[in-house]
Amino acid sequence: MTTLIKGGQVLSTTGASLADVLVDGEKIIAVTAPGVFTEADEVIDATGKYVLPGGIDAHTHMEMPFGGTHSVDTFGTGTTAAAWGGTTTIIDFAVQAKGTSVLSTLDKWHEKADGNCAIDYGFHMIISDVNDTSLKEMEACIDGGVTSFKMFMAYPGVFYSTDGEILLAMQKARETGSTIMMHAENGIAIDQLAAQAYAAGRIEPVHHSLTRPPELEGEATSRAITLAKVTGSPLYIVHLSAAQALAAVAEARNEGQNVFAETCPQYLYLSIEDMAKPDFEGAKYVASPPLREKSHQTDLWKGLRTNDLSVVSTDHCPFCFKDQKELGRGDFRAIPNGMPGVEHRMDLLHQGVVAGEISLGRWVETCSTTPARMFGLYPQKGVIAPGSDADIVIYDPAARQTLSAETHHMNVDYSAYEGLEITGKVETVLSRGRVVVSPSGFSGSTTHGKFLSRGLNQYLI
Amino acid sequence: MTTLIKGGQVLSTTGASLADVLVDGEKIIAVTAPGVFTEADEVIDATGKYVLPGGIDAHTHMEMPFGGTHSVDTFGTGTTAAAWGGTTTIIDFAVQAKGTSVLSTLDKWHEKADGNCAIDYGFHMIISDVNDTSLKEMEACIDGGVTSFKMFMAYPGVFYSTDGEILLAMQKARETGSTIMMHAENGIAIDQLAAQAYAAGRIEPVHHSLTRPPELEGEATSRAITLAKVTGSPLYIVHLSAAQALAAVAEARNEGQNVFAETCPQYLYLSIEDMAKPDFEGAKYVASPPLREKSHQTDLWKGLRTNDLSVVSTDHCPFCFKDQKELGRGDFRAIPNGMPGVEHRMDLLHQGVVAGEISLGRWVETCSTTPARMFGLYPQKGVIAPGSDADIVIYDPAARQTLSAETHHMNVDYSAYEGLEITGKVETVLSRGRVVVSPSGFSGSTTHGKFLSRGLNQYLI
Amino acid sequence: MTTLIKGGQVLSTTGASLADVLVDGEKIIAVTAPGVFTEADEVIDATGKYVLPGGIDAHTHMEMPFGGTHSVDTFGTGTTAAAWGGTTTIIDFAVQAKGTSVLSTLDKWHEKADGNCAIDYGFHMIISDVNDTSLKEMEACIDGGVTSFKMFMAYPGVFYSTDGEILLAMQKARETGSTIMMHAENGIAIDQLAAQAYAAGRIEPVHHSLTRPPELEGEATSRAITLAKVTGSPLYIVHLSAAQALAAVAEARNEGQNVFAETCPQYLYLSIEDMAKPDFEGAKYVASPPLREKSHQTDLWKGLRTNDLSVVSTDHCPFCFKDQKELGRGDFRAIPNGMPGVEHRMDLLHQGVVAGEISLGRWVETCSTTPARMFGLYPQKGVIAPGSDADIVIYDPAARQTLSAETHHMNVDYSAYEGLEITGKVETVLSRGRVVVSPSGFSGSTTHGKFLSRGLNQYLI
Amino acid sequence: MTTLIKGGQVLSTTGASLADVLVDGEKIIAVTAPGVFTEADEVIDATGKYVLPGGIDAHTHMEMPFGGTHSVDTFGTGTTAAAWGGTTTIIDFAVQAKGTSVLSTLDKWHEKADGNCAIDYGFHMIISDVNDTSLKEMEACIDGGVTSFKMFMAYPGVFYSTDGEILLAMQKARETGSTIMMHAENGIAIDQLAAQAYAAGRIEPVHHSLTRPPELEGEATSRAITLAKVTGSPLYIVHLSAAQALAAVAEARNEGQNVFAETCPQYLYLSIEDMAKPDFEGAKYVASPPLREKSHQTDLWKGLRTNDLSVVSTDHCPFCFKDQKELGRGDFRAIPNGMPGVEHRMDLLHQGVVAGEISLGRWVETCSTTPARMFGLYPQKGVIAPGSDADIVIYDPAARQTLSAETHHMNVDYSAYEGLEITGKVETVLSRGRVVVSPSGFSGSTTHGKFLSRGLNQYLI
Repeated sequence: MTTLIKGGQVLSTTGASLADVLVDGEKIIAVTAPGVFTEADEVIDATGKYVLPGGIDAHTHMEMPFGGTHSVDTFGTGTTAAAWGGTTTIIDFAVQAKGTSVLSTLDKWHEKADGNCAIDYGFHMIISDVNDTSLKEMEACIDGGVTSFKMFMAYPGVFYSTDGEILLAMQKARETGSTIMMHAENGIAIDQLAAQAYAAGRIEPVHHSLTRPPELEGEATSRAITLAKVTGSPLYIVHLSAAQALAAVAEARNEGQNVFAETCPQYLYLSIEDMAKPDFEGAKYVASPPLREKSHQTDLWKGLRTNDLSVVSTDHCPFCFKDQKELGRGDFRAIPNGMPGVEHRMDLLHQGVVAGEISLGRWVETCSTTPARMFGLYPQKGVIAPGSDADIVIYDPAARQTLSAETHHMNVDYSAYEGLEITGKVETVLSRGRVVVSPSGFSGSTTHGKFLSRGLNQYLI
Repeated sequence: MTTLIKGGQVLSTTGASLADVLVDGEKIIAVTAPGVFTEADEVIDATGKYVLPGGIDAHTHMEMPFGGTHSVDTFGTGTTAAAWGGTTTIIDFAVQAKGTSVLSTLDKWHEKADGNCAIDYGFHMIISDVNDTSLKEMEACIDGGVTSFKMFMAYPGVFYSTDGEILLAMQKARETGSTIMMHAENGIAIDQLAAQAYAAGRIEPVHHSLTRPPELEGEATSRAITLAKVTGSPLYIVHLSAAQALAAVAEARNEGQNVFAETCPQYLYLSIEDMAKPDFEGAKYVASPPLREKSHQTDLWKGLRTNDLSVVSTDHCPFCFKDQKELGRGDFRAIPNGMPGVEHRMDLLHQGVVAGEISLGRWVETCSTTPARMFGLYPQKGVIAPGSDADIVIYDPAARQTLSAETHHMNVDYSAYEGLEITGKVETVLSRGRVVVSPSGFSGSTTHGKFLSRGLNQYLI
Repeated sequence: MTTLIKGGQVLSTTGASLADVLVDGEKIIAVTAPGVFTEADEVIDATGKYVLPGGIDAHTHMEMPFGGTHSVDTFGTGTTAAAWGGTTTIIDFAVQAKGTSVLSTLDKWHEKADGNCAIDYGFHMIISDVNDTSLKEMEACIDGGVTSFKMFMAYPGVFYSTDGEILLAMQKARETGSTIMMHAENGIAIDQLAAQAYAAGRIEPVHHSLTRPPELEGEATSRAITLAKVTGSPLYIVHLSAAQALAAVAEARNEGQNVFAETCPQYLYLSIEDMAKPDFEGAKYVASPPLREKSHQTDLWKGLRTNDLSVVSTDHCPFCFKDQKELGRGDFRAIPNGMPGVEHRMDLLHQGVVAGEISLGRWVETCSTTPARMFGLYPQKGVIAPGSDADIVIYDPAARQTLSAETHHMNVDYSAYEGLEITGKVETVLSRGRVVVSPSGFSGSTTHGKFLSRGLNQYLI
Repeated sequence: MTTLIKGGQVLSTTGASLADVLVDGEKIIAVTAPGVFTEADEVIDATGKYVLPGGIDAHTHMEMPFGGTHSVDTFGTGTTAAAWGGTTTIIDFAVQAKGTSVLSTLDKWHEKADGNCAIDYGFHMIISDVNDTSLKEMEACIDGGVTSFKMFMAYPGVFYSTDGEILLAMQKARETGSTIMMHAENGIAIDQLAAQAYAAGRIEPVHHSLTRPPELEGEATSRAITLAKVTGSPLYIVHLSAAQALAAVAEARNEGQNVFAETCPQYLYLSIEDMAKPDFEGAKYVASPPLREKSHQTDLWKGLRTNDLSVVSTDHCPFCFKDQKELGRGDFRAIPNGMPGVEHRMDLLHQGVVAGEISLGRWVETCSTTPARMFGLYPQKGVIAPGSDADIVIYDPAARQTLSAETHHMNVDYSAYEGLEITGKVETVLSRGRVVVSPSGFSGSTTHGKFLSRGLNQYLI
């Protein structure tokens, strides 16, 4: 079965050009000047539209256990919502609990996801328990296509690793060429500040941000960079939110160190002011690192332009306001950490193009091409090119839409962007050659997505 | 007439992938999975070879008047040598002499080049005389496809512009969206040091470098950046050679300023030690900025990786050792400034790939894609994609060759890399669809190349 | 004749301590615990007062020719006003005009000042014309006790020196151990901006500031630092006003380079808002560098604390509003550059102590001890110690006063601080053992002050 | 009883001047021009000698328990050796053991020291166990004249505090105006590296340094600075040894943060090469942080000049080679950490004056005046001024001596500087007016020294 997408502006990291795309089965087989091919089993007219590689969201948490509850999107609902939003690959996190095996964790995550995804997916592994066994298991993970390992400098007693444990894991990363991903906040100091706030009766959601000052994200980021330097390990800072952390990353990159960072749409568009909304509404915005003062947004956009921020992911980790977020009504520390977002990343970053913050090429690069290269999926994913998977989004740059919990497809009872009017909209989405979203609606299936065995980070030298 | 290049590794900024390329007339019309097309008027087997966009050398000086003599490559010999080395576009400098008109200068350069080039070419304009007329003429240049203007902070009395004149030209650049290119050395201070050296009897070629300390390149670079900041002008630092200058560029880029820089192969591979060679041989290496201590090379390679150096060009400006370089036997200040190099850029940077200094993608990016985007030629040039000009190089990454004046095609009596053995060699070159170099030799013509009317810098935001 | 100052808090760079000071003739001969001496020819009770070394104003312009007029304080009126304000030494600038001899300039300044000063004085030499003769004359200046040479990167055609000329003078400074003082603004670029403003009808005083952006002070400061590095010359940046310039100085000092800087009270207390006052009143505040946005004040106070700003001087250069400042009513460029201030420096910096910006020790250090050491007057001046000149100020830290042209002693028709209420007031001043100011008024004489033959900068290593 | 010291060069932070010093009882009562006083109970001729305030060693460990043994100098032997070397005040560390009370610790240290010191002494308190009680006890310490609290980011399980504990103590420091002193090395990571080295059979002393890379000192220093910024606490980095740490301190100081640092003579004169000496001799040089590559020495001297390093102390903590250092023959981790040095600090830093690394004024400032001001002893200590304690050193700058265990007075069986020939020697030492060292030998007594109740850091603003 062949599909011809004709007349569109094909996007790459270097911009747009008029071209036709021919798909055969699951693969793109040709990119041509307009009109070279005229026939195919199916012909899609993309005139006036962008034709771009499907989005890759390198940071999601489907069905994730957290503080006694679970994030509410299953792999099925979450990947369907992703597809609606033009994302055709997610990389989710398998979560090793303390005292458990890394490999059995990976098995468990395969069990949850395999056969239940609307789009292709891969895994990172969260290492919570560093010991001889788990270090050894990292090698098996890599053999199994899981080539990146997340660690936490926050959440003591849960995910937290000491600097000594981080050092050991980084040595293993250096040895294997894999990448350490870091949640960089000084959780030990933060927990003291949070306990003091609670003890003093400062219990509202905004204190989640006030007790996690940006300096402590900057500090942890610098520390992780130093440990990576000492060990020679590649390092990828997840969900960077603070100017201080960005400065540390920029300095290391300037020195040529293998340090990378991602940010998320919520840090680009939302702020601590949202967390201060009355009637506990601020709880909707509780995630870690927290939303910051607005001035950080300017720095983050600059970081996206200078490539000190290389990737935009969502950290999608939705908890319903009712019953879940409400667990923290009397103590902000008990609010489940996380926000929904997997559906809106491509649209929100397109607003950056509309506003002149980033170029068309950077939109594609930060949301698709770079995550593919960073996480060993390129050129299978992340580019419109012959031989690549036919993960293709046809995007109408002129359409208007309003974001709302009433219309979104994520399994969560609120939107962090309720009522936001934006420009641009996904029209059609192909996943491995199959049309899964079209103007007539969702035509995919949650049995369609396949596990992606990933290679190593392609930016290392 | 169609040409099919099959079985090669097609290179782009993101690496290599197996694909076939179909050319129709002057244009690429399709890039496909292997075997999609099987027939064409001509079929070239590229199995085991790289297929990359033709090199773009954004900095050459053919037939340039300097100190009473001329650089010895004509547009004909120089562009032919370029083609031999896998470069399919040059951007040469039209040189306004003090007291003359910018537009008549442009006419004169068209006269020299038009109908005399083996490959396509464009012009930058050197502004030596800033006044109301010349500033006005910048607009006409842009209309005529000359969208970048070079100025000098060195060579007082010849090309030198004062900071006030630079400011005026930068204001015009800001207004028109064009780019100021800067030779950034503090020539006023340097000329004092050089005069002192000569007066003290230090007349040998090495004093050309010793009297141009890297700090004075760093200073001028910083100054140009500040003037660009005050005026809002895009700025492109040409032939950056010193770590101090790189640091200034990196800092500005980190701040998100529209500042860019190129370096040249001679600064990556040669050093002040070459200038100290006995029997006046050092004169072969006299160019400005001068060759530096070897330690700068490490920084420059790092800059190429971090993209603080975005482009590699040659500053090709050949003077024969005999009769020309020899003019300075008694006074290093009289040695014509310039080195040959247009033929070897692609090969020399490929050595950086071989040595692990840069990736395959960066090779293509710094030598072809980025210059195309920086100087408004993209996507006509700089990429293997449908719709683009069929400027294509088939490169054998495993071939071995030895650089030498005996075998090179530049019209100059010495090689700066005499005897250097390298890995990789151009096999076939297409210029706008026509095979101009092949294993059987040069099959092009110096009437083939066309003038390129360029757009604006595509990196600005 | 002996004088005993008893019961006061004697101040030094390290703070205050209760002690008595015994003066014999022109010298301090003992500092003792209270009560060691009880008798003297004259006994001054300083109980509850500060006893500090007389202020040293290292930057004044008495009777200075500028733009066809003269600054209105003579050496007589200016030094008398200085004494009233607790300053017992000034270092004024002899001004070589282009085309004239350095040594005859020095003679001329001696002629103006000798026998006409109320307090001791020294000279810096302004080098406007760099040539073999003037460079040679620098040596004679040093022999004559003039050990610092000011140059200008602004005022082309008047005081401006090229980078080449600066380099030559710096080489001489390196050779002799003398210090180059720099007016660091890029005057070449500034003059273009000013001409454009005037041509566009922006003629009001505030455009004096708007056409001298702080970036161009930062740039020139960096450039001067680089030239000093290349030559090995000590460098002292005069009247630093901009955060950008401070950053450049701080970086150089961090690297251990012999770079120093002063600021002036007007940059700490006044701002561009004053220059925007209606009815041409802004002209009162026209000086170069210009007053800046208020945010710079915060940085300058910080610089005083970190010692990146080592000295506070006044750049006292008064022009009357009437007839003089008014020369620029139709063109801000014609407003004489300069402000009165020699009388208020000690008081204004004491406000910094009151406000908690600087410590008592730093007040004494920046206003007296450091200028003495910087300009080769220590320990003759700048400290309360046996053997030092008895230049002593008794200061009442609790007194209140209001600054006003009605009450000040400078020969100028306005005060830049009209109506400002401040805490602290000079009570008694001794110059070389003689009481010149006391609660009963001025008892000095303009024949009292002696020329100070200065040594070299004592901070060099 | 009065003593007159006549004819000497009296030193202060600003250099030398010829003056006489009159002592009455325990106090200096006058500093005068030569010859003002001629009689006294005792007259000491200091012609040709320096007369400087007695040294203050702000970092010593007498009789300190460490790893099952004790540092071998008692308060008696250690303070006697200090006096021999021109140090008249030490500030030693009381060491709270985990699980014990801060105040009972202080009592214990008073018990050890009171009545057993040859010179005056104060205490810092090491906080090893942060809890509500110990935090509260910090207030009582301050009331008792112990105003600075040392914490460790190294030595987990012994002295180590978590970042959360550090944060709590810093909040208390901010509240009380006291100063946190920090041993800044990332001990958690270091212990992993050390365990790996041992496991791999790398057991020699040099591995003590190799497993404590300078980057991990830089990291911990940065982290401490950030925690100090978040809490607003004054911070004093002890025994800074690495360029990376110095860079972090310099940056914070440039920003005006209340951050200070000391280094020690061993980091200025010794290096990792000493630790690599054969036959276990390297053990003599085992201390933490470890000796570094020689290149760090250049940076440290520069830091002393720029005042980013404000104090030189010794970290005197002697263990005999025999029986004590030898505990680690089979495992470098078991070598007691510490080196002798209290006797040689003044002499070794005087070598810096001789070598042109620092000025005379900086010698006095870093070794006496600044520690006095930093630790609330000024002007009682740290200056030759009326009212100050008569702690006076008469130093012969021209004498020659050779350092050796055979001649030193410290109770330890080796010298880290064995055989080093140096210029300058202590001739006479007064402690509170009493001659304790003179050309005839030690005339003091270990009952002479008194406890110093200290005030707060005088550099805070």
